[in-house]
Amino acid sequence: MWKLPRHEDDEAAEEEGIGRILALSDGVFAIAITLLILEIAVPATTSAADLPKALLGLWPSYLAYVLSFLVIARFWVTHRLAFRLIARDDAALMWLNLLLLMFVAFLPFPTAVLGQHAGSPAAAVLYATSVVLASVASAAYWWYASGRGGLLRPDVARAQVRAMRARSLSGPVFFALTLPIAVFAPYAAEIVWVLVFPLTRMVFSWFFAQEHEQPG
Amino acid sequence: MWKLPRHEDDEAAEEEGIGRILALSDGVFAIAITLLILEIAVPATTSAADLPKALLGLWPSYLAYVLSFLVIARFWVTHRLAFRLIARDDAALMWLNLLLLMFVAFLPFPTAVLGQHAGSPAAAVLYATSVVLASVASAAYWWYASGRGGLLRPDVARAQVRAMRARSLSGPVFFALTLPIAVFAPYAAEIVWVLVFPLTRMVFSWFFAQEHEQPG
Amino acid sequence: MWKLPRHEDDEAAEEEGIGRILALSDGVFAIAITLLILEIAVPATTSAADLPKALLGLWPSYLAYVLSFLVIARFWVTHRLAFRLIARDDAALMWLNLLLLMFVAFLPFPTAVLGQHAGSPAAAVLYATSVVLASVASAAYWWYASGRGGLLRPDVARAQVRAMRARSLSGPVFFALTLPIAVFAPYAAEIVWVLVFPLTRMVFSWFFAQEHEQPG
Amino acid sequence: MWKLPRHEDDEAAEEEGIGRILALSDGVFAIAITLLILEIAVPATTSAADLPKALLGLWPSYLAYVLSFLVIARFWVTHRLAFRLIARDDAALMWLNLLLLMFVAFLPFPTAVLGQHAGSPAAAVLYATSVVLASVASAAYWWYASGRGGLLRPDVARAQVRAMRARSLSGPVFFALTLPIAVFAPYAAEIVWVLVFPLTRMVFSWFFAQEHEQPG
Repeated sequence: MWKLPRHEDDEAAEEEGIGRILALSDGVFAIAITLLILEIAVPATTSAADLPKALLGLWPSYLAYVLSFLVIARFWVTHRLAFRLIARDDAALMWLNLLLLMFVAFLPFPTAVLGQHAGSPAAAVLYATSVVLASVASAAYWWYASGRGGLLRPDVARAQVRAMRARSLSGPVFFALTLPIAVFAPYAAEIVWVLVFPLTRMVFSWFFAQEHEQPG
Repeated sequence: MWKLPRHEDDEAAEEEGIGRILALSDGVFAIAITLLILEIAVPATTSAADLPKALLGLWPSYLAYVLSFLVIARFWVTHRLAFRLIARDDAALMWLNLLLLMFVAFLPFPTAVLGQHAGSPAAAVLYATSVVLASVASAAYWWYASGRGGLLRPDVARAQVRAMRARSLSGPVFFALTLPIAVFAPYAAEIVWVLVFPLTRMVFSWFFAQEHEQPG
Repeated sequence: MWKLPRHEDDEAAEEEGIGRILALSDGVFAIAITLLILEIAVPATTSAADLPKALLGLWPSYLAYVLSFLVIARFWVTHRLAFRLIARDDAALMWLNLLLLMFVAFLPFPTAVLGQHAGSPAAAVLYATSVVLASVASAAYWWYASGRGGLLRPDVARAQVRAMRARSLSGPVFFALTLPIAVFAPYAAEIVWVLVFPLTRMVFSWFFAQEHEQPG
Repeated sequence: MWKLPRHEDDEAAEEEGIGRILALSDGVFAIAITLLILEIAVPATTSAADLPKALLGLWPSYLAYVLSFLVIARFWVTHRLAFRLIARDDAALMWLNLLLLMFVAFLPFPTAVLGQHAGSPAAAVLYATSVVLASVASAAYWWYASGRGGLLRPDVARAQVRAMRARSLSGPVFFALTLPIAVFAPYAAEIVWVLVFPLTRMVFSWFFAQEHEQPG
């Protein structure tokens, strides 16, 4: 059976830290977030009279742009919070992080499909599935780093680890729950997605508050 | 009512500073500024004889490219000046900054529309509106950081804060004022926009000089 | 005969280190990895009924996306390991690194060809050749830095240098060996490529273990 | 008359250095160098039999890709050398640098035209003109920083300044000289361009050697 040969990576990692992992990650986040706009095609109409209508007709693309910008920004915010608590890296963390980046870099495609096929169940299902995959990868690196990997800074409180775990699960769970909505009511699913962010925030705050018996 | 749960972000922010916010921002600025060129399509003519005319006929796209490059560069210059004075970040600053990045990353689209539909009021109005939105987001993070947020370095003078506030308002105000021009005389609006930069510079210098009674 | 005039670059290099080489490299890796998605075109069908079939029909593009993401990620992982051991740069290292970046930045094109012409020997040969060229460049900078260039940190063990050399050769050798498969059985070649990663990993570990008489 | 109000920028610059200017510049260089590949379109033929011929027929695009990669890499190498000697920035240096970035970010467009219209004088003239403009901007920031701006580190030798000035002029002068060749023999111009790099290198080394009476 194949297992990750971690030795040579880990040794070097302990010496120099995680600077280049963050540099590559910030690069991919910044590019994925900025490439979204390339998926909105300029209307090919030539008459100035038809242009306003054509531009307004692109509203599903604008909505998909805003939605995916927020989704990717959210992954970046979580990434920044998590890597503040991570002291070291190893090969497993590096590849789990690359898995997250692979799914994040994929998101412009389902975003474009959603923008051009608004109201299509297939587009909504593709979108929700893609976000679930990215969310699972986002949860995976945190669970590994805070669990078996043992890569956190020594001063990180158990309560904070558990709060971040709840937060990391809130994303995949909520998007997975919207999959049936995406099949039967694609427009409703989009509206629900825009609401996911404050909801997961609240779940996180509530969980964190329970641990501490003080507001998080 | 929903409010920003700031605790967990703020705590970490004070420890590690704003390096990754700047990394993501510089990435988005650099990409948005470089993606502009992708919106200029190579003329599909096949005969070498027609190519010169086709290339020259793209002048509205070249003009839109230069205009948007300067607009985005301007946002970056302001961002750099502002974040030199900002000592700490919190969740609100981070999301206001992401709002700015969302509007900056959107600009290649109105730029492409402007290049392909020069002289169309709809294209000019879309462009002016997009820049106004980005300018408002640019003003918002500075007003928050220098006001309620209280995130500035302790040694920043009140006069400098007020000067930067005037500067931050000059952008949205000037572009908003050009909206009626964009409706009735789209070409005139483009010419005015190219002149906005020295104008807003002068407003800023004048305001700063008044505070100090010395040239800014 | 033309030779590399290295003096003026080397002098400066020893003073300031290799920070900007890494910044440019991480940028190119991040962009190449993220641009891959732009090569997957949104199906132009308009009916919602045909969309699921059209999306599923893109599976060769999805496979090519995952494959190239892993290939480029692998080059980055090797780059990170190698530059941890490199203490100084000179003009030759800088240009060999730029050569690697040139081939890495080229990879989105053969990836797109492979995705749109799955099962075509020409597409598979183009892909394998491109990866071999990038792998050779990746090996070249390491052999130069660890050999004639003498740019490594003084504390790097000979065994580690030799292990990294074996690792650097495993990539080009494996992809070159798949060239005949690509000609006669393009689909088989793709399956083999996905298996190359653990294989080269194992070769590296085996070689490293031989040197040390302990697991690598 | 309008002049650059430099005060507020300069003051801050002296405090914090030029880190973000380099971050934005490296970002634009990395993106421009990587976007080049997007300009090579995948052949639209559907039959596997025609694909090899179609791929080989793209050779002018491959040549243009390599040429522009080297041109942009060259600007980056010069940029890195120059900014190692620059200690401070001011508003003029920042805007001259942004001017360079504007012309560098423009280069993917003439590259695409050259790749798709090989042998067309218009394409060759557009390409040469674009590189001349970028080269002039590249020379401009160095002449300003090393001259009127007075932004160099105090320990930089006059001979080194003069050598870098000769180097900075070699680019625009050589590409300007090829403009007539581009008009009458576009293919010859491309061949000459590939040779420009070692030539300008030699001019630089020769000039530097003269100053020092020792090989550069």
